[in-house]
Amino acid sequence: MRLLVVNPNTSASMTQRIGAAAGAAAGPGVEVVAVNPAHGPASIEGYFDEVFAAPGLVEEVAKGDGAGFDAFIVACFDDTGLEAARSAARGPVIGIGEAAFHVAALIAHRFSVVTTLSRSIAPIEANLVKYGLATRCARVRACEVPVLALDDAASGAREKLSAEIECAMAEDSAEAIVLGCAGMADLAATLARRHGLPVVDGVAAAVKLAEALVGLGLATSKRGPYAPPLPKPFVGAFAGLGRPTRRSL
Amino acid sequence: MRLLVVNPNTSASMTQRIGAAAGAAAGPGVEVVAVNPAHGPASIEGYFDEVFAAPGLVEEVAKGDGAGFDAFIVACFDDTGLEAARSAARGPVIGIGEAAFHVAALIAHRFSVVTTLSRSIAPIEANLVKYGLATRCARVRACEVPVLALDDAASGAREKLSAEIECAMAEDSAEAIVLGCAGMADLAATLARRHGLPVVDGVAAAVKLAEALVGLGLATSKRGPYAPPLPKPFVGAFAGLGRPTRRSL
Amino acid sequence: MRLLVVNPNTSASMTQRIGAAAGAAAGPGVEVVAVNPAHGPASIEGYFDEVFAAPGLVEEVAKGDGAGFDAFIVACFDDTGLEAARSAARGPVIGIGEAAFHVAALIAHRFSVVTTLSRSIAPIEANLVKYGLATRCARVRACEVPVLALDDAASGAREKLSAEIECAMAEDSAEAIVLGCAGMADLAATLARRHGLPVVDGVAAAVKLAEALVGLGLATSKRGPYAPPLPKPFVGAFAGLGRPTRRSL
Amino acid sequence: MRLLVVNPNTSASMTQRIGAAAGAAAGPGVEVVAVNPAHGPASIEGYFDEVFAAPGLVEEVAKGDGAGFDAFIVACFDDTGLEAARSAARGPVIGIGEAAFHVAALIAHRFSVVTTLSRSIAPIEANLVKYGLATRCARVRACEVPVLALDDAASGAREKLSAEIECAMAEDSAEAIVLGCAGMADLAATLARRHGLPVVDGVAAAVKLAEALVGLGLATSKRGPYAPPLPKPFVGAFAGLGRPTRRSL
Amino acid sequence: MRLLVVNPNTSASMTQRIGAAAGAAAGPGVEVVAVNPAHGPASIEGYFDEVFAAPGLVEEVAKGDGAGFDAFIVACFDDTGLEAARSAARGPVIGIGEAAFHVAALIAHRFSVVTTLSRSIAPIEANLVKYGLATRCARVRACEVPVLALDDAASGAREKLSAEIECAMAEDSAEAIVLGCAGMADLAATLARRHGLPVVDGVAAAVKLAEALVGLGLATSKRGPYAPPLPKPFVGAFAGLGRPTRRSL
Amino acid sequence: MRLLVVNPNTSASMTQRIGAAAGAAAGPGVEVVAVNPAHGPASIEGYFDEVFAAPGLVEEVAKGDGAGFDAFIVACFDDTGLEAARSAARGPVIGIGEAAFHVAALIAHRFSVVTTLSRSIAPIEANLVKYGLATRCARVRACEVPVLALDDAASGAREKLSAEIECAMAEDSAEAIVLGCAGMADLAATLARRHGLPVVDGVAAAVKLAEALVGLGLATSKRGPYAPPLPKPFVGAFAGLGRPTRRSL
Repeated sequence: MRLLVVNPNTSASMTQRIGAAAGAAAGPGVEVVAVNPAHGPASIEGYFDEVFAAPGLVEEVAKGDGAGFDAFIVACFDDTGLEAARSAARGPVIGIGEAAFHVAALIAHRFSVVTTLSRSIAPIEANLVKYGLATRCARVRACEVPVLALDDAASGAREKLSAEIECAMAEDSAEAIVLGCAGMADLAATLARRHGLPVVDGVAAAVKLAEALVGLGLATSKRGPYAPPLPKPFVGAFAGLGRPTRRSL
Repeated sequence: MRLLVVNPNTSASMTQRIGAAAGAAAGPGVEVVAVNPAHGPASIEGYFDEVFAAPGLVEEVAKGDGAGFDAFIVACFDDTGLEAARSAARGPVIGIGEAAFHVAALIAHRFSVVTTLSRSIAPIEANLVKYGLATRCARVRACEVPVLALDDAASGAREKLSAEIECAMAEDSAEAIVLGCAGMADLAATLARRHGLPVVDGVAAAVKLAEALVGLGLATSKRGPYAPPLPKPFVGAFAGLGRPTRRSL
Repeated sequence: MRLLVVNPNTSASMTQRIGAAAGAAAGPGVEVVAVNPAHGPASIEGYFDEVFAAPGLVEEVAKGDGAGFDAFIVACFDDTGLEAARSAARGPVIGIGEAAFHVAALIAHRFSVVTTLSRSIAPIEANLVKYGLATRCARVRACEVPVLALDDAASGAREKLSAEIECAMAEDSAEAIVLGCAGMADLAATLARRHGLPVVDGVAAAVKLAEALVGLGLATSKRGPYAPPLPKPFVGAFAGLGRPTRRSL
Repeated sequence: MRLLVVNPNTSASMTQRIGAAAGAAAGPGVEVVAVNPAHGPASIEGYFDEVFAAPGLVEEVAKGDGAGFDAFIVACFDDTGLEAARSAARGPVIGIGEAAFHVAALIAHRFSVVTTLSRSIAPIEANLVKYGLATRCARVRACEVPVLALDDAASGAREKLSAEIECAMAEDSAEAIVLGCAGMADLAATLARRHGLPVVDGVAAAVKLAEALVGLGLATSKRGPYAPPLPKPFVGAFAGLGRPTRRSL
Repeated sequence: MRLLVVNPNTSASMTQRIGAAAGAAAGPGVEVVAVNPAHGPASIEGYFDEVFAAPGLVEEVAKGDGAGFDAFIVACFDDTGLEAARSAARGPVIGIGEAAFHVAALIAHRFSVVTTLSRSIAPIEANLVKYGLATRCARVRACEVPVLALDDAASGAREKLSAEIECAMAEDSAEAIVLGCAGMADLAATLARRHGLPVVDGVAAAVKLAEALVGLGLATSKRGPYAPPLPKPFVGAFAGLGRPTRRSL
Repeated sequence: MRLLVVNPNTSASMTQRIGAAAGAAAGPGVEVVAVNPAHGPASIEGYFDEVFAAPGLVEEVAKGDGAGFDAFIVACFDDTGLEAARSAARGPVIGIGEAAFHVAALIAHRFSVVTTLSRSIAPIEANLVKYGLATRCARVRACEVPVLALDDAASGAREKLSAEIECAMAEDSAEAIVLGCAGMADLAATLARRHGLPVVDGVAAAVKLAEALVGLGLATSKRGPYAPPLPKPFVGAFAGLGRPTRRSL
């Protein structure tokens, strides 16, 4: 099984870390390839960044479909471009936010999400409603650490994250914590031990759910909103996209 | 007052028709300018097309903000890129789907939407949930006419649209009809007369709501998800977007 | 265009202030007339007062319909009698609560309402649910100032209102504030400047939405719950209401 | 125990029938008095009629409170003026619509309502949402028989009602039927036998729930929206209502 | 009328107290019999205990049905086994949690529940959603007193309960309190006086609702999920249950 | 990894088939053991059967926990006893209904469920609401084939199932089908081919999700409703359950 993990932002260092986290989660016989688009923002913090990250994400998924990948992961917690990516590939496509919510719902009655910046709370809440899992989430919280500071030991990022987890346990009666950023992937195990409750990282969750779907022989339904895109003229930067070969999906 | 209407697809003929509809709806003293992006799909039919239309839409709104426009309309019924556009402009930004739903909710207890293709039903339903107005909508229906066929007299488009409106009246007890595509803008009055109930076109609705917001001196709140984008590196096709001048929003 | 603003309580001084606020908001060519019923309570604070204010409100709307007004505003934040008024007029009828919610939803992801007394919280929350916009409202708050004290400089009303707005910003992450009483109409601009976020007044909002609907040529659908009342005997105080001429609506 | 049943319309014959139905349902030791207001419409069919029926209803409840009644029933299926009546009495106040919904929810997972005219569907649905029981109701249906025709053997009313019940059983999988009009009170037992499922009449249901509340020593909470009305000036037809003695509630 | 109250736990002392509370609430002519199963846990605190209490509960209800009881009460606030019990009896079956929620909804716009241990919050919340009444409940709270300590004067149970009620009044704006455990039945009147708001005990509430249903001649609908169980083989401890005589229900 | 699949009914032949289906779905290195309780009903069709199946199910899970199994599957589509089982094991516990809903939600915007008998519709709908996924399910349908007839070629079971799938595709616009009974596990692949859309079987789905959770090192949170049961006396048939060793969970 070949799994393509697409980091929709353009930070190669983050792509590497996400790829390493995905590879560590993958089972035997699963080849993980991690890529990021050639254009777009260095991190995704809010709706504006999402719009400019999504085309590159979808193009990478479409390329991966052509290259025969079996499943695809959208490795931004906002699940940027997830639905469009579903229409661009034959194999299943999973967002790391979505994956984390589903996994958390299987091990806890109610969970809280801790993300980076408060401007990301609204899109995450909207996703929870869209997926149907809003009633399972006690609260989406932000620790007010920018995405690119998560790596910076001097930023106090981990302490802020731990403090917010403590608040979620005390104020939300959270039974599990979902880490709301791909850049937090390597912290889950440490935080789970420190705080004594399950901590879900979306990258690993998405890898295991992708393995599950491929193992089940299931892929995105092509009846409805995820049908292949209709062929039509595309102009300018995206001029190649309208070609009739898209029909083949 | 200067109003920028952005058709997010790249069909100049549709931009012209939308501009004409918007101009006809605008009050005295309102200058309407209609534009479309230089890149992207010729029509927007589903999630895939949305992703490639949104960057151009947001760029046009950002340019319009720089050029001093007072308000902005996203002229695709899916409200493609609406939230990102809000973070890219100081003035209010209104989607034509959103506008039509709010206007219909002011004149009817329950309305139905008639859009083009069934693949667009899911995104429209998701928007209704996001906006909070899903309980006011009896049903989102598709008349199965492609966007670009709406202009083609030989396509039977108008008859299919009328037939679907009759179904909405009989089966949904719809009290009003929302036309679910910018390309239907010039049909509203005729259909209202033929079927004897209010028919709402989103383009005109958005123009009047934009006038209302400007008249009230109200613009998008910058507390929360519509705050100006954070400055950060953008690479590739969108390389110019991360420049610090975005702070000025 | 002729716009009838009906203050459903019997305080002529409040009618005057509401009329002035509505007139200030109205565009050129809009004639605003503000009236109040000849019977009913001096202010509307809770369900009891609403019941005794509603008949006079509906009678004024019906009279206005006979006098050829183009649109109608119910100028109590509880939207007292709004639905009955819709069935009593051909032109559109807008409640100031409803108007404020819709306008706030166009400029903010989530807003809070600050009303007068806590006994009004339940009816306002019920309206939000009925309109479908409850998910857009973070919280309905009361500053515990009686309606008729809003004018009294010695009451500390404005300070209490400001304090509650600060709470809404801090505790609810409110992105915009809706003022929950017609008597607060003239405070919106000052409060917006002081607190640095959009503040929506329902009177002005309703005027602009009424102008929008009239401009669109749209009026209340007569299919469904807002159909003209059926002719039938009325006895006692309301004896004149059942006359068959009501059919003509 | 003394129970006041207020028919909010002004049809004395209907008041008599409602009183008889209530009396038949009442247990030993319960004195039932049925009244109707001196002013208002002869029947309540939609929002317009409700507004003109509610003041008389609330006045009758307030008079009954002064006269020492222990509990009160609002005998219109729309629960006209119910919340205001709650603030006007010390004893519990129950609407027949509300009563029927609660009783049906205790004997069936999902029920359907069959009311008179389709214009009443929206207010009934709104009540179900307000009470929280909308998820328990499969559908609100109208048999298109005017209230005052229910008594008229030549109107075919009973056949239409039976036909609609059959539809509810077949199409909604309704497990129980709620009769959606006070004027249908005497048909419940016959229809239950004919159709072989529980049929709930709101008048009898409200009587038994009122007995239950009085038996439990429970009355409307005066913390919140049902607190006694604040004393204030009332002018015109309702001039006597603002007197300070209302404080005593 | 003969009413069977089944305490689903095996603490005979609690059965006695519940029986006494039920008897005190019952009207004249109502014979109350209180029983508990011969097997199962001594108290029900969470999902695990529920599963082992439910079979005995259903068996007692089925026996009571054979013995001609007219109505049945499930006397655990979690409404353990309520739905299965409904399918096992001809007469109506009421849970004390369910009864308390319905009664509270008739006397207050919004109520809070105070139960024993926080592990019971989730099942109670799930019931509120299932019954449809979740929107009427401000919050489910736990006073962290084990069920069997409620009787122990030295446990400080009553003080903890009172403290939690104060929190519900201050933080939830609760208008009424529902006591969330059958073992609290005898405290309702005292707490209502002390805190000055309605306090609802589910045991008494269920008795009065059972009387109401029997008085109305209404019983559980047998169309749908509460139909009599299908005859089929049962093995082991429950071997007698599959016998065809179950058809007779 | 050792996976215990518990069929909560007592039909050994069905246990064998479920075990075979689970074994076929399991990845390399996963040991699957399938068991059923020694007591309870031969099939689970509705609430009554569930109550008598749940104790045996929980006992098997608790025994499996003692025997060191890593994860557990509740192999009845009603997810009988799932929550109690979660409190009885350290490893993750997954219901096949739950698993099928989550998997379907990852590959389709909206799915329909086809179960055996209509009496099972209500419990399945209740589960969908409890899990939060009700908005993702278009409709729960029954093909009216008893569980034990699924194996009987002469019963026409497969034709009825196919016919109901066709209805779900035509009437519900279902994009995927969830098979609503453990006994349908071996039909999924055939039906998917025949009808041309994804068909999800809960047994296989649960196996892959269990593998995913174990692979992620995640287990049920013990904060909240799934905490180990409190030690307390159990009498009668379940007398051994209250022993303090339960603390060790």
